[in-house]
Amino acid sequence: MKFDTIAAIATALGEGGIGIIRVSGPDAITIVDKIYKGKNSLSTVDTHTIHYGHIIDSSGAIIDEVLISVFRTPKSYTMEDVVEINCHGGIMPLRRVLATVTDAGARLAEPGEFTKRAFLNGRIDLSQAEAVIDLIRSKTDLSMKAAMSQVQGSLSKQIHTIRQQLVELMAHIEVTIDYPEHDVEEVTKELVINTTEQAIDNIDKILATADQGKIIRDGISAAIIGRPNVGKSSLLNAMLKENRAIVTDIPGTTRDILEEYINVKGIPVKIIDTAGIRETEDIVEQLGVERSRAVMQDADLILFMLNVAEELTEYDITLLKELQGKQAIVILNKTDLVAVFTEDNIKQYVDNTSIISLSAKEEEGIEHLYSEIERLFIEESIKQTDFSFVTNTRHTALLKTAKAQLNEALNGVQFDVPMDMVTIDITSAWESLGEITGDTVAEGLLDQLFAQFCLGK
Amino acid sequence: MKFDTIAAIATALGEGGIGIIRVSGPDAITIVDKIYKGKNSLSTVDTHTIHYGHIIDSSGAIIDEVLISVFRTPKSYTMEDVVEINCHGGIMPLRRVLATVTDAGARLAEPGEFTKRAFLNGRIDLSQAEAVIDLIRSKTDLSMKAAMSQVQGSLSKQIHTIRQQLVELMAHIEVTIDYPEHDVEEVTKELVINTTEQAIDNIDKILATADQGKIIRDGISAAIIGRPNVGKSSLLNAMLKENRAIVTDIPGTTRDILEEYINVKGIPVKIIDTAGIRETEDIVEQLGVERSRAVMQDADLILFMLNVAEELTEYDITLLKELQGKQAIVILNKTDLVAVFTEDNIKQYVDNTSIISLSAKEEEGIEHLYSEIERLFIEESIKQTDFSFVTNTRHTALLKTAKAQLNEALNGVQFDVPMDMVTIDITSAWESLGEITGDTVAEGLLDQLFAQFCLGK
Repeated sequence: MKFDTIAAIATALGEGGIGIIRVSGPDAITIVDKIYKGKNSLSTVDTHTIHYGHIIDSSGAIIDEVLISVFRTPKSYTMEDVVEINCHGGIMPLRRVLATVTDAGARLAEPGEFTKRAFLNGRIDLSQAEAVIDLIRSKTDLSMKAAMSQVQGSLSKQIHTIRQQLVELMAHIEVTIDYPEHDVEEVTKELVINTTEQAIDNIDKILATADQGKIIRDGISAAIIGRPNVGKSSLLNAMLKENRAIVTDIPGTTRDILEEYINVKGIPVKIIDTAGIRETEDIVEQLGVERSRAVMQDADLILFMLNVAEELTEYDITLLKELQGKQAIVILNKTDLVAVFTEDNIKQYVDNTSIISLSAKEEEGIEHLYSEIERLFIEESIKQTDFSFVTNTRHTALLKTAKAQLNEALNGVQFDVPMDMVTIDITSAWESLGEITGDTVAEGLLDQLFAQFCLGK
Repeated sequence: MKFDTIAAIATALGEGGIGIIRVSGPDAITIVDKIYKGKNSLSTVDTHTIHYGHIIDSSGAIIDEVLISVFRTPKSYTMEDVVEINCHGGIMPLRRVLATVTDAGARLAEPGEFTKRAFLNGRIDLSQAEAVIDLIRSKTDLSMKAAMSQVQGSLSKQIHTIRQQLVELMAHIEVTIDYPEHDVEEVTKELVINTTEQAIDNIDKILATADQGKIIRDGISAAIIGRPNVGKSSLLNAMLKENRAIVTDIPGTTRDILEEYINVKGIPVKIIDTAGIRETEDIVEQLGVERSRAVMQDADLILFMLNVAEELTEYDITLLKELQGKQAIVILNKTDLVAVFTEDNIKQYVDNTSIISLSAKEEEGIEHLYSEIERLFIEESIKQTDFSFVTNTRHTALLKTAKAQLNEALNGVQFDVPMDMVTIDITSAWESLGEITGDTVAEGLLDQLFAQFCLGK
């Protein structure tokens, strides 16, 4: 495929020491050479070398002092010639250098266009490309590890194996159809059954990680529910305090999305804003119950909070009974005060729901709560894995489609449907899986996927 | 000087394709080598080369896929060994890689510490170091050019020349004092007078650029003043519209400081928020006059707005008369409507104040207003210069001090003060100038100056 030369700011915008303009395409080196003044012409330099100099405008005036990194095809991010201009990190230097590069002949890149080229030029497959943006946007260590694993091709490898099995099966059937005289029908039938069953089994194994994968990548929502003054805000503050320390140890990060999430042992947990609930502190009990119910509906996790220093109310007992079958933790708060009931008293209302005692005010027992959240959402088995999960709902949907198509094929064989009909379902499954890795994929989908990227990647 | 090894995130924080961790110091290469897995050990590679590989944790697990740039002393930003780790641009990858680097033995750098080392190691002088942050924070093309010129050493060169003259003079006086028999007193006296006068003249030349330099770097504040409904908001919107298009052509820049400034031909213009004034639309005239006066006090530029379709009021005439001697432009707005007065009618109230007719609603005549602002604030002479201005108030203050000290010396000579007394003043001037370039400077001041830098620079 033949592309033009594109350019974009590749670093985050704002005030920084260093900013990078990335240029990729057949004319990348020639274009930057036109506006670069240094010891050597860039056309003569080796790949993977760095060159000090200046970016100059058409009148020869210095725009910025820069370091130029040259990557020659195919050993680059896009597999094309790539030049990275390392300039001063402010908005004005980045804008002026970018404008000089585009004036010299490069086109402004679209979001994700560099990674799209890495995919179209065959360096990475589609699932790896999609993981790049997951990696950049990852919210916890765990979500970063899962994204990194996918960037490294863990999912691609699994998909590739299944597709290979299906291709071999399809070839075998093809031969059988073309040369029926060479074949014993029963043998083919058994082969189709065995192979599709095995492929379904493999797909199931991947799908088994999907729920975990989604939790790790996208996180869960949690609602802190309880009567007025049981300590909901204190708990939220205690959880945020610890996390904010992590987030804000690097100046400038506070404004970011990370702030919205609490990192609970690698699980990004977003607390549902219950400000509306808190305002209703003096409303009648029944209204409080209904509003709490509504919030509980929307949450992946309910943190139901009681004050151990006060007797249970009608509100408490009504809602405790409704926790059954939901992902919930009952929190007995204010253990620093004299308790008027115990965990055992609560057990009569809830069957299998976890119960935790803590003091939000004293910040005691928070770690215990975190372990309980981890226990509810992260299976023991995955803690030692290679972090290869399906995290992407697009991939999950395609795996389910492929599985359905293979089941269709399996049914067909069992009901003696002609082999050329069965092969259609197998081919469809093979294609569905190919959409994950991008081996079979429509241009429109690509545009849509890469449009979600940030500029300069 | 012997330093330890420091590390920091060098790119702006946020979502970006690429992020950089910069490591500098004697152990930079050894430290990164410990956590880097690639084809070659970094200890063996050439300076200014780039190496693909992975950053791994102590268990060998991959943290991120990276490109490592190696700069060997003295050919680096700090003149020390420098390693730049080019990793994925999200907050989580940057944080994890930085944590791995500090775990391996680097210390977290303080703001400006890399540039401080570049200064302490003698690569750049203090005025150049200070210009680096001006460059990063520059708000318009013009302010960037002025900062770039200073980074390149334009101010340093001028200061150096004057200090050299003074050193030679001091040496001559020293000889005269030590060996009075070799000297004719009159000759020395004349030399002192000539040299100090010349030095003062040179300082004056630099100081002449200070007002311009401050305007270019820090911009001016402008207040749009006028009666309710003369079109103040329309003018502001028309000015912002054009600028916002410039700022927002790069996604993500809107939240930045640039948004507060309107770029008027390279002059950063900050419109004083007159929301308070606008709220008083139906208050009595006298109060309106007083509030407008208060705003006019604070502005570098007054844009006094009239509606040509309505007769002048008492408010208009009172304030028009007060524009005398202030930096002001009278704007006759709503030229798209039928005018009931002309520019000539206004001239009876204002002596030399500029008058501009425009239509804010139709966005006609805005360019004319911009030219007028440029004419008021930028001297014709500087448009073709090399953009070498004193932009920094610290430098301006030191130049003024040096000038006063030289005048003191000049007076001394003229009143036949003993030469060893005169030489004290000359030495003081020489030291004051040295504080600009950092040749004579206290450690405390350095800390204070570099603390204003962003992290990673």
